[in-house]
Amino acid sequence: MGKITVQRIFLGFLLQLIGLCAADLNRLNIWPMPVSVQYGHQSLYLSKEFVLKTEGTKYADASGILKDGFSRLLDVVEAAHVIELNYSHFDPSLLLQGIHVVILSPNDELQHGVDESYKLLVPMNRKPVYAHLEAQTVYGALHGLQTFSQCCQFNFTSRVIEVRQVPWTIIDQPRFSYRGLLIDTSRHYQPLPMIKRVIDSMVYAKLNVLHWHIVDSQSFPLEIPSYPKIWDGAYSIAERYTMADAAEIVRQVTYSCFSCYAQRRGINVLAEIDVPGHALSWGTGYPSLWPSKDCKEPLDVSNEFTFKVIDGILSDFSKVFKYRFIHLGGDEVNTSCWTTTPHIRNWLKQRGFNESEAYQYFVLRAQDIALSHGYEIVNWEETFNNFGNKLSRKTVVHNWLGGGVAKQVVAAGLRCIVSNQDKWYLDHLDTTWQEFYMNEPLTNITDPKQQKLLIGGEVCMWGEHIDGSDIEQTIWPRAAAAADLSFGLFCHLDVERLWTPYDKLAKDPRQITARLAHFRCLLNQRGVAAAPLAGPGRVAPEEPGSCYMQ
Amino acid sequence: MGKITVQRIFLGFLLQLIGLCAADLNRLNIWPMPVSVQYGHQSLYLSKEFVLKTEGTKYADASGILKDGFSRLLDVVEAAHVIELNYSHFDPSLLLQGIHVVILSPNDELQHGVDESYKLLVPMNRKPVYAHLEAQTVYGALHGLQTFSQCCQFNFTSRVIEVRQVPWTIIDQPRFSYRGLLIDTSRHYQPLPMIKRVIDSMVYAKLNVLHWHIVDSQSFPLEIPSYPKIWDGAYSIAERYTMADAAEIVRQVTYSCFSCYAQRRGINVLAEIDVPGHALSWGTGYPSLWPSKDCKEPLDVSNEFTFKVIDGILSDFSKVFKYRFIHLGGDEVNTSCWTTTPHIRNWLKQRGFNESEAYQYFVLRAQDIALSHGYEIVNWEETFNNFGNKLSRKTVVHNWLGGGVAKQVVAAGLRCIVSNQDKWYLDHLDTTWQEFYMNEPLTNITDPKQQKLLIGGEVCMWGEHIDGSDIEQTIWPRAAAAADLSFGLFCHLDVERLWTPYDKLAKDPRQITARLAHFRCLLNQRGVAAAPLAGPGRVAPEEPGSCYMQ
Repeated sequence: MGKITVQRIFLGFLLQLIGLCAADLNRLNIWPMPVSVQYGHQSLYLSKEFVLKTEGTKYADASGILKDGFSRLLDVVEAAHVIELNYSHFDPSLLLQGIHVVILSPNDELQHGVDESYKLLVPMNRKPVYAHLEAQTVYGALHGLQTFSQCCQFNFTSRVIEVRQVPWTIIDQPRFSYRGLLIDTSRHYQPLPMIKRVIDSMVYAKLNVLHWHIVDSQSFPLEIPSYPKIWDGAYSIAERYTMADAAEIVRQVTYSCFSCYAQRRGINVLAEIDVPGHALSWGTGYPSLWPSKDCKEPLDVSNEFTFKVIDGILSDFSKVFKYRFIHLGGDEVNTSCWTTTPHIRNWLKQRGFNESEAYQYFVLRAQDIALSHGYEIVNWEETFNNFGNKLSRKTVVHNWLGGGVAKQVVAAGLRCIVSNQDKWYLDHLDTTWQEFYMNEPLTNITDPKQQKLLIGGEVCMWGEHIDGSDIEQTIWPRAAAAADLSFGLFCHLDVERLWTPYDKLAKDPRQITARLAHFRCLLNQRGVAAAPLAGPGRVAPEEPGSCYMQ
Repeated sequence: MGKITVQRIFLGFLLQLIGLCAADLNRLNIWPMPVSVQYGHQSLYLSKEFVLKTEGTKYADASGILKDGFSRLLDVVEAAHVIELNYSHFDPSLLLQGIHVVILSPNDELQHGVDESYKLLVPMNRKPVYAHLEAQTVYGALHGLQTFSQCCQFNFTSRVIEVRQVPWTIIDQPRFSYRGLLIDTSRHYQPLPMIKRVIDSMVYAKLNVLHWHIVDSQSFPLEIPSYPKIWDGAYSIAERYTMADAAEIVRQVTYSCFSCYAQRRGINVLAEIDVPGHALSWGTGYPSLWPSKDCKEPLDVSNEFTFKVIDGILSDFSKVFKYRFIHLGGDEVNTSCWTTTPHIRNWLKQRGFNESEAYQYFVLRAQDIALSHGYEIVNWEETFNNFGNKLSRKTVVHNWLGGGVAKQVVAAGLRCIVSNQDKWYLDHLDTTWQEFYMNEPLTNITDPKQQKLLIGGEVCMWGEHIDGSDIEQTIWPRAAAAADLSFGLFCHLDVERLWTPYDKLAKDPRQITARLAHFRCLLNQRGVAAAPLAGPGRVAPEEPGSCYMQ
């Protein structure tokens, strides 16, 4: 029996470090790697009537989140090949009759910090045989179902789904509570079905935050009921999202919502409006938001209407985007339009503001508006770099410029998300999956209290060269490398990472290549266009060969 | 009211040429362009309970092909945005209550030459209002539903699905009965869900033959029950298809088949085994098929076992692949292993064969085997080029080397499929969609009897650099350019193409750019990763911008 064990607090219990990584670890093909895995060498087979059992669970599943998750589990494990239903020659004790899910919390509110832990057992020699999944919340249970799906594979001899390496005992929880992927629907519009496909694929890698960079200078695709002309800034009338579309992506609130796609899959949606820069498209519908017709961004800091619009947007957002955080951008603000436009120059003079103070004024006022709508705030790191001590204490600073700022952010007592562009920007095609994998968010952060302020990381799929044709293969498999680091962790690295200075950590991702290749082939089997590992991002296969070797 | 009319025989009636292309043709965004279109300037809206009516139809739909096609119609038109069900402010006379489908043939056998014509009417001012679709077969009706789906779009004001340009009168049928797309699962394995996605996208462009180049030198992924070791030539145990998987793709016969994917969508599957070259992988399981261990292809012409295996394969195929044709390859045969291997050299000597005669012997014997299993044969053009007058009269010659051979093939009284590599090979990334569009299969073929022997064309997605990550955006949108040519035809070209010598035809595809861009954006909306038009194949968007402009 193989064994991976990592000292980790789980469900309130301190698990003891009972062994180092076993040599046969490479035979495990679960991605991301769970915290603790024990497994054997026997096989069970999914019964024809593989069922979901929920006796003893405290979660009523009125909204069908668990039931639908179970149904998707069956869909993905059965999609790769036709099951030929000839169970007569099976010893009934080898048939797994179902999975028994026990959820301890009746609550299915999805929010930052929700308990995502789970414990999965696949025992032998019970009659009848059921897998057993225990979780605090339904979202932990969804992760457990996802892990279970990765223990399943089609057996070409028996023609049914086999669960290999039984018995399994898997104990798991995320290392970071924020495991994000940014998509950008301003540089290119992404149709709703494409966004749903991205969400599906995030589920497979246990990412849990879709950071939706909705709007930027190039286009404003989203309906804002309070300011109905603002989506005149869309590329075309077709390339728009209604607020009901947004609700469909996120969850049901006041809008009709047929599937509430992300929430039902355990994925929070972090909506962003990037102000005061990156907002040129706002002025198509409301030109007074521009400093002038010749100088169109940043938003006019001197105009009260600017803040009224932000307030209207966040008011509308608060009905749909229920994640605790809203992203207010704040990066790359070139204030020259403010000083070259007479009425703004006068305003600055009256207030006694220089450009930098006006930028601070804008960001802090936008923060106040967000706070008034009940949001905590995420801002890109320039806000911290320029006036970190003025930011609301409810700010999460979003690193992007490079390594290093995270340490300063948490030392200042603020929370931080890591997305350093040299390692975690997916549009940087020359950044390899190995570099994604080796990017350690906690670099040089050793104080456990400060480590807790580092709430996670995010890989960013900026959309300048990304549309519906190339988003999947640019995201995957590199985003998965970050997911492994931020959900589970390859044991060898993990054990050391918790105690060992960063510069002494193992730095060889070769030991996980086969497992990542397996995961990318699994994504292909599930219809996700994940690219080969060999080469830079979005590379085509170099030559004929097996998926597992490319 | 706009008008496109083309003189064309349809449903037994000679339609009169009643007008030239109208200037407002560009406002039509149907792909491929139907034979005849009349449309207006009013709008209807899909009712909340948009239904399928079949009164008066002679087709019982026992297998649910029509019902499922209707259900997919609703899925694709409703996928792009959330319908907000507030019909109260609609004039009931503007609500389209459903589509009334009348199918004249009770038979749903899918086969080469099946009647694919349809007539679609969307009238105004009837109470209650129904669209009307008439077709000879259920497969014509599926095309009609596809066309109808392209007349639908989400209306951002009323928040429901709008049918614009009503009243519609569309009369349509394919120009060619064979409209193919080749996929290659030997150079890279394509998981079942990926093949299904390709089939879905073919439906949108009204392509009707999936040419499945199953096996080649690199790998043999398909189970052959008669020779159970032959899929030892697969890349890995996971990268294989069971015969039940194949049946699932094609249709239900003796194997279990849950969805019989292609047939239910009106798509024939042309299976290929490419002999005697391109068959190295056969010998992994049966090494005696190789001339020797040092010289592994072509298949050993002197070994009776070689033909027994071909017979076994085609016997197994005949239970699953029910298309009239089987593809036997026959291209790029380098016979040097036959002359350098002593036992084959001796055999040639005994028979008095030179290499070329041995190649002919092999191909004709394989043809005889195929004929004995009830198949007609497709062979790559080298067979015709070398011994065309010896080929079975049931041969369809598959052009690939370049233009020109088609004229000779049909002059010799054989049928031909056009895939000249300089224009219709999708793996040639530098071939633009314009070149795909301008490739005329009937070049220099003027005799109407000979024109009929040209049964169609096929675009080829060879798999050396294609796997699950890049197949869709390499196929689309360029394959659509060929589809427009071989199903409907842009009226301006079509009218002329039927009467005018090829060298006098309009050669400017610019007039259809906007319509093709619209179709590629539609594919994106339906979750198909079709690439931008601007640039070579599989190009990423060059810069931020609207889908419709890239």
